[in-house]
Amino acid sequence: MDFSSDTSAPAHPAVLEAMARVNSGTEPSYGNDSVSKHLREVLARTLETEDFEFWLCASGTASNALALSCFCPPTGAVLCHEESHIARDERGAPEFFSGGGKLQLLGGKGAQIDETALRQALAAIDHGFVHETPAHVLSLTNLTESGTAYSRETLAHYAALAREAGLTVHLDGARIANALVNTGASLAEMSWQAGIDVLCLGLTKTGAVGCEIIILFGEARKKAPELRARAKRAGHMPPKMRYLSAQALAMLDGGLWLDLAATANQRAKQVADMLCKHPGTELLHAVQGNEIFVRLDNKVADALRQAGASFYPWLEGSYRLVTNWKTGEDTVERLSKLVV
Amino acid sequence: MDFSSDTSAPAHPAVLEAMARVNSGTEPSYGNDSVSKHLREVLARTLETEDFEFWLCASGTASNALALSCFCPPTGAVLCHEESHIARDERGAPEFFSGGGKLQLLGGKGAQIDETALRQALAAIDHGFVHETPAHVLSLTNLTESGTAYSRETLAHYAALAREAGLTVHLDGARIANALVNTGASLAEMSWQAGIDVLCLGLTKTGAVGCEIIILFGEARKKAPELRARAKRAGHMPPKMRYLSAQALAMLDGGLWLDLAATANQRAKQVADMLCKHPGTELLHAVQGNEIFVRLDNKVADALRQAGASFYPWLEGSYRLVTNWKTGEDTVERLSKLVV
Amino acid sequence: MDFSSDTSAPAHPAVLEAMARVNSGTEPSYGNDSVSKHLREVLARTLETEDFEFWLCASGTASNALALSCFCPPTGAVLCHEESHIARDERGAPEFFSGGGKLQLLGGKGAQIDETALRQALAAIDHGFVHETPAHVLSLTNLTESGTAYSRETLAHYAALAREAGLTVHLDGARIANALVNTGASLAEMSWQAGIDVLCLGLTKTGAVGCEIIILFGEARKKAPELRARAKRAGHMPPKMRYLSAQALAMLDGGLWLDLAATANQRAKQVADMLCKHPGTELLHAVQGNEIFVRLDNKVADALRQAGASFYPWLEGSYRLVTNWKTGEDTVERLSKLVV
Amino acid sequence: MDFSSDTSAPAHPAVLEAMARVNSGTEPSYGNDSVSKHLREVLARTLETEDFEFWLCASGTASNALALSCFCPPTGAVLCHEESHIARDERGAPEFFSGGGKLQLLGGKGAQIDETALRQALAAIDHGFVHETPAHVLSLTNLTESGTAYSRETLAHYAALAREAGLTVHLDGARIANALVNTGASLAEMSWQAGIDVLCLGLTKTGAVGCEIIILFGEARKKAPELRARAKRAGHMPPKMRYLSAQALAMLDGGLWLDLAATANQRAKQVADMLCKHPGTELLHAVQGNEIFVRLDNKVADALRQAGASFYPWLEGSYRLVTNWKTGEDTVERLSKLVV
Repeated sequence: MDFSSDTSAPAHPAVLEAMARVNSGTEPSYGNDSVSKHLREVLARTLETEDFEFWLCASGTASNALALSCFCPPTGAVLCHEESHIARDERGAPEFFSGGGKLQLLGGKGAQIDETALRQALAAIDHGFVHETPAHVLSLTNLTESGTAYSRETLAHYAALAREAGLTVHLDGARIANALVNTGASLAEMSWQAGIDVLCLGLTKTGAVGCEIIILFGEARKKAPELRARAKRAGHMPPKMRYLSAQALAMLDGGLWLDLAATANQRAKQVADMLCKHPGTELLHAVQGNEIFVRLDNKVADALRQAGASFYPWLEGSYRLVTNWKTGEDTVERLSKLVV
Repeated sequence: MDFSSDTSAPAHPAVLEAMARVNSGTEPSYGNDSVSKHLREVLARTLETEDFEFWLCASGTASNALALSCFCPPTGAVLCHEESHIARDERGAPEFFSGGGKLQLLGGKGAQIDETALRQALAAIDHGFVHETPAHVLSLTNLTESGTAYSRETLAHYAALAREAGLTVHLDGARIANALVNTGASLAEMSWQAGIDVLCLGLTKTGAVGCEIIILFGEARKKAPELRARAKRAGHMPPKMRYLSAQALAMLDGGLWLDLAATANQRAKQVADMLCKHPGTELLHAVQGNEIFVRLDNKVADALRQAGASFYPWLEGSYRLVTNWKTGEDTVERLSKLVV
Repeated sequence: MDFSSDTSAPAHPAVLEAMARVNSGTEPSYGNDSVSKHLREVLARTLETEDFEFWLCASGTASNALALSCFCPPTGAVLCHEESHIARDERGAPEFFSGGGKLQLLGGKGAQIDETALRQALAAIDHGFVHETPAHVLSLTNLTESGTAYSRETLAHYAALAREAGLTVHLDGARIANALVNTGASLAEMSWQAGIDVLCLGLTKTGAVGCEIIILFGEARKKAPELRARAKRAGHMPPKMRYLSAQALAMLDGGLWLDLAATANQRAKQVADMLCKHPGTELLHAVQGNEIFVRLDNKVADALRQAGASFYPWLEGSYRLVTNWKTGEDTVERLSKLVV
Repeated sequence: MDFSSDTSAPAHPAVLEAMARVNSGTEPSYGNDSVSKHLREVLARTLETEDFEFWLCASGTASNALALSCFCPPTGAVLCHEESHIARDERGAPEFFSGGGKLQLLGGKGAQIDETALRQALAAIDHGFVHETPAHVLSLTNLTESGTAYSRETLAHYAALAREAGLTVHLDGARIANALVNTGASLAEMSWQAGIDVLCLGLTKTGAVGCEIIILFGEARKKAPELRARAKRAGHMPPKMRYLSAQALAMLDGGLWLDLAATANQRAKQVADMLCKHPGTELLHAVQGNEIFVRLDNKVADALRQAGASFYPWLEGSYRLVTNWKTGEDTVERLSKLVV
């Protein structure tokens, strides 16, 4: 009963099988291999467009920071939610990669940016006023850090506001599969069709060993050479790229990533329902992915812990429980006996 | 007949098997897993000491740059050979990670630093003279970029000179296995016993998927928390660390890494001998690892290419050929028929 | 009737006379001149201690950023008020100089940090939790950005809390003379005796041409060589340092700086009193220095503007008026006729 | 008899008088003052063009580093001479301001870049080869660090080669007045007419208190907003800009700067002639400005020192003597009695 994080789960066996499958023969290094070429085709189908460039990363933090650094100059800022991963959990990676750029934090419930706050921030941008740091990028996260899903309408609306103000729109999609499953939107609808310029498509939390894809759409494609150069000097150009591409292929080709996310989401729903049967449980955010944020009766929390369940304390006395592709129905059943 | 790079070879099957073997059950993220704990034991045996800290990286560039950034402040410099990988092939990674530190380039044959140049550079360090950038680190590379091996005596001698001048000594060991096989020295002899403070132990070129180990010895261990923080913000703290640890285990436990390097070295020797049978061949550096630097008769070069051999043009009309763990004896034989 | 900023005023004539006075004969460059040596003596008397090191800067932004960069590593954060100058008005200078460090913003009325917010931020520091950026410095500002003065008791209390948590305490004293005049505290009481480790003593807004002094006290003195090196590489080591020292001497020796601040403060008081005679005026913060933050009746604002008064619109429909050493009593009188 | 540096001389009295002259009345801060507007007119006349933007700096190091950082991305390099000021004497300022860019050092006699080395470096640029750092800027220095002057023909030739290769051309003109006097070229001929994109026009060594002008020509003007933003965040936007502009006006309007440089050059010639009367003197570089690089007979060196002359030991047992606008003919006479 490990609810600590979706990254404590093992990878899906198909991922490792795919890596073993490409493990023969020589291949050009640094992304010029045949596996990466195949991945491009599969990505085009998955994204329903050819109008993109991509780069692979083993780390979500690197993926976000590299993407942001191509669009936020050292004298600029990134608008993001105050609870976003780039603001709270990446040890200053965006500031490091951008050469000292700033994050400008916005509030909003369920870790979704408040529209009024966004409008005010956009209206305040004044490139001619040299003393303040103007925003160049809006960074959104879906699934959010509170486990809620932006609808594609909200995403498209926010992206449109940001673009009108001259900003580039970045989507941190470390758990985008969970958001897609929840909303029923396609990846195309949730990314470029919604006005996203650069997408960090995460597969690690979904079930890969370690695989994230930075995708530049449309105009943003012009930054592809800079992205490669920045990736190289940040040590995010592993020579044997085929193994990253193999992971992505295993997940995307055939839709395994969405299946795994669907399982994780379903388990989260079941776990939340189970917990809510106890009158002392307070659900803090709608469960729209694979994360549950709750206040628990002390007795329940203790019972879970004594039964070996692991989960993290969160803000203000609450708890976070995360399910993953391997969370079994038996786990839900075991849980049901503990919440009485 | 791929002699383009040792990174174009596949990983050794044992590496992927090891990754698959750890692919079950949940594990704590970010390096607190049981596989990484086991790796520490194996590393201690391999290094013949307990007096070390380590961090895993998927990239050699990141490994070097992270290591250097812990010891070279933004106002300082790193002494290194003018042909070293950190100077020529990492797109400014050391400068990026150190926040604007400098590389101070030294000459020397066979990509080995000239002792006089080293002594002069060390003597010129003046921390009180604010206008010039004082060296804080000496970075050595073994196997060097010209495929030659520093003897452990030279390494120890240079390290002693540097330490006397107050510098930290870094060893870029992207191909250290090849140097160990060549010199007969043990890893302990070639690292901490020789006065190396921080070792970047490379396993990728030797046969891993992507696995490098930064190792801090003795006093340098104090930098371990900073190293972790820097790794995190550079996106070099993948959550599912077990897969990196599994690679290292597969290579180190039982000595596979040295066996693979021995094969690669032997093939290089054989290839060089074969090429040298032609009177037009000029060997530019002693072949002391898995790299061959030669001038070739045009006809020989053409014949190789027409037979499908791949290799890079190098400095001043020369060529570089690299062998790897998978280079077969049949390749040598095929080659022998082309060099007439 | 220029109330736009205290930096739009000319320098006090004594400052330019002092510069002209040292303008003869040769002097060693880069701070080794006799004027700078004399300044050290005067500073010691002014600070009532010998336990300090100092560096001169022509810019307040540079002064703050250089000071902070010596104590906040690139992987760390600075606690400061959300309206502080370093957060809002320096275009990311702290992030730039620190190599990507973060500012962690705290709220509080009158631009003074709220004690509860400070305590929570200090309690949350966890150097072992690698994902979040731990605070290394507390930065306070006196006079604050809302023109209020921290009492020396509050300053000392906050500094003690921060030091207990292992932080270095920085004081942005761009308008410290105004705060000293207001509170009656001595510079010693408001700086090292209150637990300030590093003081940015501003003289530009008070009446210099461009002169700020970074002062390191006690343990912080160890950072003096790093401060010099950082100043050099940031271009804040002008060769002809004597002219900066001459400015500081003109201001400090004899107490001119406090006299000028006293005048500016008195005028601010008079202007505020005058404005408040109108029932439509709302004073937003106590006037404890040379800055007035008010809401004005539209007719009053218009009358002022038509009479040629200049002042900036501030947050939420308010205005900021700043007096300086040259604001005359006649200006107050003229004003009195406009506010009816 | 101070030959240590031209920065140990005082400023010309006219400079301080000009500063005092603008010291009345209020003026907008940050460069929007009337003095700076007047300076623009004088600069246009001096440069013989209106096609430029400018920014003022109190420091030559900052002036160079700010200029370079607008044209060299963090993933790029600057070509410069191995003895150039930006490489040897600025403590890594270019690397700091550019966010980790590299300097690529070229050789050549008299601190002038060798044409073959330049051509090779330009030919080696390959933006598609991600591992190496491509040059984006060529930085030239006139007067060079060896006191020699590039002719305008050579400057124009090098600039043309660099521009053809897509580089921006920067001219470090810390002692440009000395080069202009020596070559007889006008500032226009030596800058934009020669293909210089960005000029750092130094006035401090010539006789100002501390004043350097960054000038962007033609296409480079597009970088003016970025230059301002970078200047702000580096603390090189002093609020009371009028005092920097006043210095520049005093020097440029009427040609004082060239007169002062002419005096310094003439004295250097006289000093060199005097020293060369001794058979033990070896002049290392032609004296084409205000700097003399010599080997001296030990007795001569001792005699000079005993008579109170100050000058620095330079490379390989040589000495550097620098004259300035205030070096008198009496100094030359005194010297003549010591060199026997």
